[in-house]
Amino acid sequence: MQIRPEAQTKARMENLAVVMVETLYPENIGSAARACANFGVEELILVRPKNLNEEKMRAMATRAGLPVLEKMKVYQDLEEALAPFGYVVGTTARLGRQRKVYETIREAAPRLAALSQENRIALLFGNEKWGLTNEDLYHCHTVVTIPTTEKASLNVSQAVVIVLYEIFCQGVEVPLPKPRLATIEELEPMYRLLKETLEAIDYVPHDNVVLWMTTIRRFLSRLDLTAQEVRIVQGFCRNLLWHLKQKGKREAQDGPPEGTSRD
Amino acid sequence: MQIRPEAQTKARMENLAVVMVETLYPENIGSAARACANFGVEELILVRPKNLNEEKMRAMATRAGLPVLEKMKVYQDLEEALAPFGYVVGTTARLGRQRKVYETIREAAPRLAALSQENRIALLFGNEKWGLTNEDLYHCHTVVTIPTTEKASLNVSQAVVIVLYEIFCQGVEVPLPKPRLATIEELEPMYRLLKETLEAIDYVPHDNVVLWMTTIRRFLSRLDLTAQEVRIVQGFCRNLLWHLKQKGKREAQDGPPEGTSRD
Repeated sequence: MQIRPEAQTKARMENLAVVMVETLYPENIGSAARACANFGVEELILVRPKNLNEEKMRAMATRAGLPVLEKMKVYQDLEEALAPFGYVVGTTARLGRQRKVYETIREAAPRLAALSQENRIALLFGNEKWGLTNEDLYHCHTVVTIPTTEKASLNVSQAVVIVLYEIFCQGVEVPLPKPRLATIEELEPMYRLLKETLEAIDYVPHDNVVLWMTTIRRFLSRLDLTAQEVRIVQGFCRNLLWHLKQKGKREAQDGPPEGTSRD
Repeated sequence: MQIRPEAQTKARMENLAVVMVETLYPENIGSAARACANFGVEELILVRPKNLNEEKMRAMATRAGLPVLEKMKVYQDLEEALAPFGYVVGTTARLGRQRKVYETIREAAPRLAALSQENRIALLFGNEKWGLTNEDLYHCHTVVTIPTTEKASLNVSQAVVIVLYEIFCQGVEVPLPKPRLATIEELEPMYRLLKETLEAIDYVPHDNVVLWMTTIRRFLSRLDLTAQEVRIVQGFCRNLLWHLKQKGKREAQDGPPEGTSRD
């Protein structure tokens, strides 16, 4: 049994802030605001932004990201911006020795989710040209990276999306209905009806019925049939058998149909 | 022990294709091309795109995404676009009963990585306004969703980023150097030197030396010290002790320093 106590902690996303340093393009600020909204982060902080074109930021933020844009704070000094935070995470694509990057965001996410319970966490993103400088990284408790291909250059707002997504996913239960498979009690009548149907159209080899039916059963088992799907197959078989019977009757005489029910 | 045989399979990203249906904005096509390049996907397919403004696509693709844009194919018919694929994955944000979404992209990723070994996989993304239609979903082997907050609306290119990232991460080993912790053999001389230093400045309570040193040891242990960091602490202690000794000597006489080495 794997023991991962932190993995089950749901992150408190409202304790995170995205801090963008010297961002060049207002579109990326807008996209980051939208990403914040998507993952429940309320605070976006800019340090020495190069262009705050309102129209371009709002277009990319879309309606979902507007509350984040409206609360956004702008600082000239990174240390001042980071003052209220208990933990600072740098992000980098470069993995030079000097950077001392020891973990991916996927590895760090469980710890960050745990820390977010009682601490405000700043997630730092550098600008589009050179990322975070060594001076920026000086302030970080840890530096994480996002795995990509070697020639990669993630857009800064795409990096924001992945980092927030990874932290958000910690301990999140997505309430997706998982299909209940049909029970043996539900399956076996279907297989008997199927065998009867295949026999009715002469599609069961006489020399090895069991082997043939095993092939059919393997084929259908692979589908992980639900009770509803079992009923669909049974309905199909009943209708087919009824039509075959009618056809036989019509060939003998011209009487009316007796109904489709069989069992 | 959890058995997850598929989890270790590294996806063959070159067997994936991103298929964007009725995309409205050329910027999103460009961003998706960049995401493809970042995660090793070479094929981008558009079905009935609404706007193929070359300049806007190229600006968002950046240099990394240009080869993907140049290979990009455009179809009018989804079925025709999907013809060569062995597995088709739909993506949706909506979780209505009708959609029959049973898994998140995180849950599906190990299976998709395994399927990508021998099959071409199409990843379908709907347009910015309404996503994939029921007619589009008709062609899908499975439909996945990305967990977000309830009021979320991921941008289509952000959805592409997350889906490709999740599949890319399967079985990827990121060669990050993990720090080797200092051994007990390396640690104990540091603690002895630290005790000597604290005593030299009268910072060890006489009534409970062991309890005090345990507190110090817990504090430093939490740092998971590396051998290099142990040497830094020792160097600091030696220099401090040497300066204390010099100061004492200077007060008695004015002799020259004897060097900083202690052990």
